[in-house]
Amino acid sequence: MKDSVLIVSGGMDSITMLYEYKDRIAIGLSFDYGSNHNAREIPFARMHCERLGIRHIVINLDFMHRYFKSSLLEGPDAIPEGHYADDNMKSTVVPFRNGIMLAIATGIAESNGLRHVMMANHGGDHTIYPDCRPDFVAAFGSATAAGTYEGITVEALYTGITKADIARRGHALGIDYGETWSCYKGGVRHCGRCGTCVERREALAEAGIKDNTVYDSPLTMPYE
Amino acid sequence: MKDSVLIVSGGMDSITMLYEYKDRIAIGLSFDYGSNHNAREIPFARMHCERLGIRHIVINLDFMHRYFKSSLLEGPDAIPEGHYADDNMKSTVVPFRNGIMLAIATGIAESNGLRHVMMANHGGDHTIYPDCRPDFVAAFGSATAAGTYEGITVEALYTGITKADIARRGHALGIDYGETWSCYKGGVRHCGRCGTCVERREALAEAGIKDNTVYDSPLTMPYE
Repeated sequence: MKDSVLIVSGGMDSITMLYEYKDRIAIGLSFDYGSNHNAREIPFARMHCERLGIRHIVINLDFMHRYFKSSLLEGPDAIPEGHYADDNMKSTVVPFRNGIMLAIATGIAESNGLRHVMMANHGGDHTIYPDCRPDFVAAFGSATAAGTYEGITVEALYTGITKADIARRGHALGIDYGETWSCYKGGVRHCGRCGTCVERREALAEAGIKDNTVYDSPLTMPYE
Repeated sequence: MKDSVLIVSGGMDSITMLYEYKDRIAIGLSFDYGSNHNAREIPFARMHCERLGIRHIVINLDFMHRYFKSSLLEGPDAIPEGHYADDNMKSTVVPFRNGIMLAIATGIAESNGLRHVMMANHGGDHTIYPDCRPDFVAAFGSATAAGTYEGITVEALYTGITKADIARRGHALGIDYGETWSCYKGGVRHCGRCGTCVERREALAEAGIKDNTVYDSPLTMPYE
């Protein structure tokens, strides 16, 4: 039964969720908030939705670029390099981004007679991003249930697993992760050195999956 | 201490809260979601913020017009007339609007080093709008506290009082409610017959305050 909206960025996690739950997803929802990498990732979100016959909507949030504070909104040179869990990745946080995306997805779900909003945050996000943690997801789900006529719920089904776990699921589903985007710098190719690139490389290596991503710095891990 | 963002529409309730808590409000935040009445109410929000020396920001949410279902977004002829609490006013609900506005306000608060988000929903809103009720506000506040580094909280200080109570407070503060906007039809003058006009007229009458609003239908209550 198609009863859900999925927030789909075009990265590994949300594309995996799109394929794993394709029979439940009525709408794939992407957000363009003016970051460096939105222009790279959203076309992948669209492509995979089209392949699966799922309606794809892009919501423009360009006010974030103007009024929000985050290195993710300041051009590629502001993006820190290193490990995803490092403290300097904190600068890439867009304040309450998941709250904003979930709230809009909830309104779109209720407007379209759907019952659930899905988000593909995972266990490794928790260290940096407060709006990826289980207590946030639970509280937000209580708010959507209370604040809508239909009692919309939030499902974050990867909250307890790792990105490597997700990669294994996606690989089993036939996903080529070369057709997804991670790099926060948003260049022509993945930089290979920013936190999201390092996290991608580690997850695929840990899952034992051949990495088809073309990197600018493919040979060594930057923190080695 | 200026530590808060207020969501300010330009209506009676939020303008009253703006004046009552002006010493705590650093930013007044209005949302233009393409409704009939946004163009009428936002200039009042801006004017009062300017008078009080409070920064005013307008966030454009024009995606709502395209993807959300509400008579409020369908032109003046779609707005029902009658009593504010009547069931037909349900058609004016913009799904999860308060959730979306609170989420964006939370991101702006965190981006600007502020600690609280204020909203001027009141007791009379509860019958129609699920995202004005105390349980929604409490759950959303838990989500903002969990989902931000600074533990942003939501304050909805009029949740337990009526619009007539608010009018009394504002009158004591010297507010001329002729310098606020309610009408959902968004014409040159208040129509006097839609739910929000009727609610305004009743609240001012109940509070014993002279109504300076210019209505198209000033003489009788439409449900009499």
